[in-house]
Amino acid sequence: MSLTIKLQLLPFLNQNRHHAAPTKNITRKQHVSGSNRHNVRIRPEPIYSSNSLIIATTRKLKLPRMQGVRSSLIEPDGGALVDLVVPESQRGLKAVEAEALPKVRLTRVDLEWVHVIGEGWASPLRGFMREDEYLQSLHFNSMRVEGGGGGGGGSVVNMSLPIVLAIDDETKGQIGSSSNVSLIGPDGDCVAILRSIQIYKHNKEERIARTWGTTAPGLPYVEEVITPAGNWLIGGDLELLKPIKYNDGLDHYRLSPKQLREEFDRREADAVFAFQLRNPVHNGHALLMNDTRNRLLEMGYKNPILLLHPLGGFTKADDVPLDVRMEQHSKVLEDGVLDPETTIVSIFPSPMHYAGPTEVQWHAKARINAGANFYIVGRDPAGMGHPTEKRDLYDPDHGKKVLSMAPGLEKLNILPFRVAAYDTKDKKMAFFDPTRSQDFLFISGTKMRAYARSGENPPDGFMCPSGWKVLVNYYKSLQAEEAAQQPVLSA
Amino acid sequence: MSLTIKLQLLPFLNQNRHHAAPTKNITRKQHVSGSNRHNVRIRPEPIYSSNSLIIATTRKLKLPRMQGVRSSLIEPDGGALVDLVVPESQRGLKAVEAEALPKVRLTRVDLEWVHVIGEGWASPLRGFMREDEYLQSLHFNSMRVEGGGGGGGGSVVNMSLPIVLAIDDETKGQIGSSSNVSLIGPDGDCVAILRSIQIYKHNKEERIARTWGTTAPGLPYVEEVITPAGNWLIGGDLELLKPIKYNDGLDHYRLSPKQLREEFDRREADAVFAFQLRNPVHNGHALLMNDTRNRLLEMGYKNPILLLHPLGGFTKADDVPLDVRMEQHSKVLEDGVLDPETTIVSIFPSPMHYAGPTEVQWHAKARINAGANFYIVGRDPAGMGHPTEKRDLYDPDHGKKVLSMAPGLEKLNILPFRVAAYDTKDKKMAFFDPTRSQDFLFISGTKMRAYARSGENPPDGFMCPSGWKVLVNYYKSLQAEEAAQQPVLSA
Repeated sequence: MSLTIKLQLLPFLNQNRHHAAPTKNITRKQHVSGSNRHNVRIRPEPIYSSNSLIIATTRKLKLPRMQGVRSSLIEPDGGALVDLVVPESQRGLKAVEAEALPKVRLTRVDLEWVHVIGEGWASPLRGFMREDEYLQSLHFNSMRVEGGGGGGGGSVVNMSLPIVLAIDDETKGQIGSSSNVSLIGPDGDCVAILRSIQIYKHNKEERIARTWGTTAPGLPYVEEVITPAGNWLIGGDLELLKPIKYNDGLDHYRLSPKQLREEFDRREADAVFAFQLRNPVHNGHALLMNDTRNRLLEMGYKNPILLLHPLGGFTKADDVPLDVRMEQHSKVLEDGVLDPETTIVSIFPSPMHYAGPTEVQWHAKARINAGANFYIVGRDPAGMGHPTEKRDLYDPDHGKKVLSMAPGLEKLNILPFRVAAYDTKDKKMAFFDPTRSQDFLFISGTKMRAYARSGENPPDGFMCPSGWKVLVNYYKSLQAEEAAQQPVLSA
Repeated sequence: MSLTIKLQLLPFLNQNRHHAAPTKNITRKQHVSGSNRHNVRIRPEPIYSSNSLIIATTRKLKLPRMQGVRSSLIEPDGGALVDLVVPESQRGLKAVEAEALPKVRLTRVDLEWVHVIGEGWASPLRGFMREDEYLQSLHFNSMRVEGGGGGGGGSVVNMSLPIVLAIDDETKGQIGSSSNVSLIGPDGDCVAILRSIQIYKHNKEERIARTWGTTAPGLPYVEEVITPAGNWLIGGDLELLKPIKYNDGLDHYRLSPKQLREEFDRREADAVFAFQLRNPVHNGHALLMNDTRNRLLEMGYKNPILLLHPLGGFTKADDVPLDVRMEQHSKVLEDGVLDPETTIVSIFPSPMHYAGPTEVQWHAKARINAGANFYIVGRDPAGMGHPTEKRDLYDPDHGKKVLSMAPGLEKLNILPFRVAAYDTKDKKMAFFDPTRSQDFLFISGTKMRAYARSGENPPDGFMCPSGWKVLVNYYKSLQAEEAAQQPVLSA
């Protein structure tokens, strides 16, 4: 493979809410001087192929001068991307140390949070929250950073969800006065050390009320994660003994914020727009993403890259599982509904809270850390039906509004979702036109699942046929499974 | 009365959390130059008398040059103190206008909020919250101010409680498409106009959960104010047709932030420390307040003034009523337990939420607007017992912690409460000494009320005798009232 050497001289991104386009092209001569003289990046030929929608690693010559590379991507929260995975050379020694420490057993969701924190999605957070961080998150949806440097947000970074680790009385007793503990994954392997720990009370009622704005029974994350958890929280500095792998055939999709930033740089992105989702992609979504790219081009960006970023952690039982969604997303790109050249599909490892306006801030903040400076926000993001009343849990407009006012997110450009629906005249998904509303058909997620479940086809043009087939097959297999689980009635 | 003319040349207050004392005395010559040349204040002789614990108004010659006076007091939030009372010359015209507008009937608590907003306690808030303000308050406990100028807090001011006005469906219907409404007090008089209104949904469950961190039944403010309220909130810009008066014999205690600032200036305060309370003052409180003054003197302040600031709005049924508390506070000053020369007793007109860490921020923020740059915070401020469980609703340390990290309160010096208890050896209230803990007796508010109810005397030195007598008399009258209300059993 031949290597080309190329100077990376992207125009500085507009980090301003008002979307002013970059106004001038910055030429090589203007910048190759002074402290920028080492800004030389070694760029491989694109190794992209139609069978591989993403490039999991980028290749570059590891020259000392590379240390000085300044990306033009949006700055991570706190100024530097957190990476808590111990270098390979130290892993043996750390593993021996971990063996001797009191042990805290992790649930699968706890492990997802270890993954999230360890790769820097929650930068500048460097571990599970201590009480000061927890209280700031709970009351202010943000955290003060000593020394500032938050890059646009001053010395405040957004942090809307409490990222905490619960332990029970017994584990607390076992920890005793130790200041470090080791974290044991659900499979029994030691995954991390938590240092300089602090143990404080887990007031579940208050945490739930302030995070969800309700304490009604039936919130998925509450029922599955918080209610069964212990009455103590343990905070501290995290050290991962190795990168988190799931061995589910999807690990190559799990790019860290660092890897994503490298990929955006490799593709010479001058704008990155992120699309968070936990549902299959239909042509309405695609229309929106393609339209966003066109708007960014019109604004003067030369190479906006789409980060199609499905959530990969805990989801509620009736959501489409991750593996099915990833297969569906692949088909959407294979069919050319989204352009593989300007799209990166990757998995966001966070668990889902379904906490509406509070959670959408987390979804946006984590994508800043991955290099996205534009974030698409829809109707009722991270929302769901009220668990006990016949209404949406959140006002569908609150997510967008809260996101646009959230502390620490000033540097992110928020792109409100335009409503797409099925245009029965044109037989395709189109932006809703209120002057001829009778021509439009709204197909909700529930309705889409009902179609797929019954084997009925949605209207032509709702989703690319190969993507639709993935869903139909999934629901068929689900029904077969359910039928097999029915008790056999004996006569 | 003779008038003396005096230059007001106070050292600039330290508006820094770290309490560095002013380091040098500033002499007249250093400052009487340039734009400060009009900083001449006309100061009357003190008109303080032992029967009048506070000076409700200050007197000064109204010279044009006075407009340029720069107080050395802490800046109000947003840079300028809000004052929404219409000048007398315009009141007639406005009243005529108000008469023709759709009418919104206020409850007694609504009227307390009109009072609070109108006098600028919630500066820079200029009316009942519109949805953007409400959402920021609910999610971030703070509000972004356009154009900044928040004086220390950058462009963010603290705003932890939603200050909102609820209306029902019928009132909403009557308002129709009018953009202004008039507000009618509980006594039927028109008290204000609300302009450029916005009506939005009152999601009570979410408001309660995010404000109190619980939705358990039995929260006093929720039961009395929110549950009976309408399902809509109406925000807008407030104009008061006249100052709010209660005609309860206590109006002379109700100094506005502007009047308090004038009084602090008149007394040449170089530090103002506020003490929020809704209970009688015992000698432990007094010890703390006197100790605080001594600490401020040691830090280099020359004339620290105490703002003893009982809450005057809605309180729960078993709290001691305002008139009894004010009488008790008078006795404490008459008895010299607190020094009248360096103490101002005034009523804070806000209603009480009992919302712990969320509410203590409001209590502190409002006092900034009144000129206080030091705030004393105790154990479990604004807390209460959990309404349905046998525990404190809030962690008793969270109030202090949340206050110290709250956005927009960076400029306020937080003074944590030292624990005082009854020292049975010295027979007086003293700071608790853990090395001889067996000598100390903790007398809770509940215990104090039990003493007063039963007519039993607390230990000598717990409270000044004349103050104690006020409480005993109150509980006696209460019992007489209760006895009178008992149904008479006929034989």
